[in-house]
Amino acid sequence: MEKHELINCHKLIEPFIHRTPVMTSRQIDEMVGCSLYFKCENFQRMGAFKIRGAVHAILTLPESKRKKGVVTHSSGNFAQAVSLAARTLGIAAHIVMPSNAPEVKKAAVRSYGGIIVECLPSLEAREQQTREIQKETGATFLHPSNDYSVILGQGSAGLELLQEIPDLDVLIVPVGGGGLIAGVAMAAHFFGKNCKVMGAEPETADDAWRSMKSGKIETNLSTNTIADGLRTHLGDVNFPIIQNLVSEIVRISDDEIIFAMRLLYERMKIVVEPSSAIVLAAALKAKDRLKGLKVGLIISGGNVDLKSLPF
Amino acid sequence: MEKHELINCHKLIEPFIHRTPVMTSRQIDEMVGCSLYFKCENFQRMGAFKIRGAVHAILTLPESKRKKGVVTHSSGNFAQAVSLAARTLGIAAHIVMPSNAPEVKKAAVRSYGGIIVECLPSLEAREQQTREIQKETGATFLHPSNDYSVILGQGSAGLELLQEIPDLDVLIVPVGGGGLIAGVAMAAHFFGKNCKVMGAEPETADDAWRSMKSGKIETNLSTNTIADGLRTHLGDVNFPIIQNLVSEIVRISDDEIIFAMRLLYERMKIVVEPSSAIVLAAALKAKDRLKGLKVGLIISGGNVDLKSLPF
Repeated sequence: MEKHELINCHKLIEPFIHRTPVMTSRQIDEMVGCSLYFKCENFQRMGAFKIRGAVHAILTLPESKRKKGVVTHSSGNFAQAVSLAARTLGIAAHIVMPSNAPEVKKAAVRSYGGIIVECLPSLEAREQQTREIQKETGATFLHPSNDYSVILGQGSAGLELLQEIPDLDVLIVPVGGGGLIAGVAMAAHFFGKNCKVMGAEPETADDAWRSMKSGKIETNLSTNTIADGLRTHLGDVNFPIIQNLVSEIVRISDDEIIFAMRLLYERMKIVVEPSSAIVLAAALKAKDRLKGLKVGLIISGGNVDLKSLPF
Repeated sequence: MEKHELINCHKLIEPFIHRTPVMTSRQIDEMVGCSLYFKCENFQRMGAFKIRGAVHAILTLPESKRKKGVVTHSSGNFAQAVSLAARTLGIAAHIVMPSNAPEVKKAAVRSYGGIIVECLPSLEAREQQTREIQKETGATFLHPSNDYSVILGQGSAGLELLQEIPDLDVLIVPVGGGGLIAGVAMAAHFFGKNCKVMGAEPETADDAWRSMKSGKIETNLSTNTIADGLRTHLGDVNFPIIQNLVSEIVRISDDEIIFAMRLLYERMKIVVEPSSAIVLAAALKAKDRLKGLKVGLIISGGNVDLKSLPF
């Protein structure tokens, strides 16, 4: 884990991603009592930060492997990210999806050029199908969060934010599979000035909070949260980084997420996912400790079904 | 009507408004077949461009009149704009509102410090009440769109857009009361390089389209459109400017507005009003004529009731 890895990663992926804006809101600052800087990855290509890691993972494959394409199993933002990244870089992306995945998710993957391979809706079938594709095509498997190359890519969002606001006191990041927070924590470590990293995690899928306590990777017993991007658990590549570099994890209820989400729509006029609104909810929850500080928030994405907004 | 008036106006109001960003979208550009530049006044203070005109109108009052405050009758964005502008500049704002105005609109005005004076829900009662306040307090009446000082203020949005993208071929602007399009047309005239101005108006409230044809100010027989900010008609101050400087007005159906609004939420991840989405709808409708051009769009505001989104 070295500083130049992040710098090189950012240089490598820069031509293929958007430099997303950092937004502020006087009204929300007043509510929280500190200065908030929102890194708007909802304005990123395909609507979420995940394109960063996907592009980086593909670009760092050796040419001989890269040309054989990539494969992942996901039905969320990472499937779209890998599809778009692969198309952008001129290679094939095989996306293994359960046959019962919503049509809208399949359509999104297809619109970015991903090749969908359906399988039975079980983890076993998914992994089996993925292995078969690897064998047949020589494609490289990309994990959405537990891959060092992906982690560096996601970390570039934190790097960019710190380039613009170098003296952040705290960075608040959503915790799902752990790729984003691990990468951003590295950015804070190497480029911040004593910048602490706080994770925001749903109360009902608090595997990371428990993992930090127990010192080993815990899994979720329930995943009953509106923050559908945060239902996954940590991995052996990102957990040590998180253990090392993240100061604390704050657990947030769905009501708190919805309240914050509404603020972002009504006051800031931006479309965000529940999994992103959670960082503002965490800032509101921890506001006594944040008073007067400069706080960066990673707004991770905006891919939400407008038909089922929670308000 | 002179160039320096717009320059002076912009200098005057700049400290009190946000410089809103100009956004782009590769995906939507591909759909329309031209380069679109979205001037995001939904990110403006109080969520709409109207603060520009309100601040300018107040700042250009002579000191002796200014200190006596201002009054307007409106229940929409202008009421909020006048309230916030007045509070920002340290004077009183009296807002005459019909007693049956929605509580949420009254709350918004109150939150910006406006003094609400209720009246019976008729135009006559409203004007009567406004005159009484003027008499009692010496407050100056501000019209939301048919006031030259307000028109200049709104025009500053066009000026800023042209500062960033000086070679726009076309600027598309919503047409409601006519203040915004008149001001932006002045900006295009003085600061554009042969930049044409196109108005976008709801089919069912097409007073401006008919006024341009007949050569006199027409009113709306129906105002049955989702674009609630565009139900008003032109005035004698802005109409001559519009006649002179606007090339054409495109009429848009509510279905077209909703389609464009959805694109803005889904692809650009921004919260906009139907009255703003209409400009993208106009670009889509006129796309054959816009092919390959650089087109500026004024996204006028984002104050929408999230509970009644049309999708």
